[in-house]
Amino acid sequence: MIDNLFAQLPRSTVENGKNPEQFADLLQRPGLRIERIVSTGQCSPPDFWYDQAEGEWVAVLCGEAKLRFADETEPRHLRAGDFVDIAPHRRHRVDWTPPETVTVWLAVFYSASLATR
Amino acid sequence: MIDNLFAQLPRSTVENGKNPEQFADLLQRPGLRIERIVSTGQCSPPDFWYDQAEGEWVAVLCGEAKLRFADETEPRHLRAGDFVDIAPHRRHRVDWTPPETVTVWLAVFYSASLATR
Repeated sequence: MIDNLFAQLPRSTVENGKNPEQFADLLQRPGLRIERIVSTGQCSPPDFWYDQAEGEWVAVLCGEAKLRFADETEPRHLRAGDFVDIAPHRRHRVDWTPPETVTVWLAVFYSASLATR
Repeated sequence: MIDNLFAQLPRSTVENGKNPEQFADLLQRPGLRIERIVSTGQCSPPDFWYDQAEGEWVAVLCGEAKLRFADETEPRHLRAGDFVDIAPHRRHRVDWTPPETVTVWLAVFYSASLATR
C-alpha cells in the first residue's frame, strides 16, 4: 500500500508500455473508491469504451493524456492538473498517453446514487 | 469555477499569508465533496482543532504542511504526494504551511455513512 501519490512509479519505457497500466486503491468505502492509475504509453484497445455504473471524477496529476468521450468528436487533451467529472454510463476511452512520460491519474469513483444532483 | 488543480494560484507572500486559505469546490454530490485548498503560510488558530462529522481523504499535491492529530504527539510532515485519511471526528489541525511556497491540498470529504468499513 503506497502512502504517496508519486511513490513506486514505474520507469516509462517502450517495454513498459506493453504492460498493463498500474492500478492502486488508495481508499475504499461503500459507494466510494479513490484510485491511483499510472500510465506509461498505454491507451484503451481499439473500439473499446468504458461504460461505468459509477461516476468518476478524475484528474491528471502529472504527465498528459487524451481522453475521448463517445458523445464528443475530438478527444480532450488533459495536462497536469486538469480534471473532469465523468457521469455514470457516459462512454469514454483513453486515446493516448505519452510513452516517454509517466502519467499519474487520481480517480474518485462514486456510486450512481451519489451521482444524482 | 476552475478546471485545473493548479489554476489561479495566489502568489505566496507574507501579505497573502495574512489572508484566509482559499477553498474551491470541485465536485459536490450528496455525501461527497471534492475541494481544493490553497495555503500560503496559514495554519490553524492556536488551540483550534477540526472535528468533522465527515471523513476526509486529503493529499498534498504541491508544497508541504505539518498536520497534527490530537491523538498523536508529533505532527506529520506531509510533502508533495503524501495523503492521509482522516476518520470522522478525529481531531486534527494544521500546525504549519510554508509561507514561501504555495501548498495545494486536494480533499475528498465523504459522509460518515460512507466511512463505515
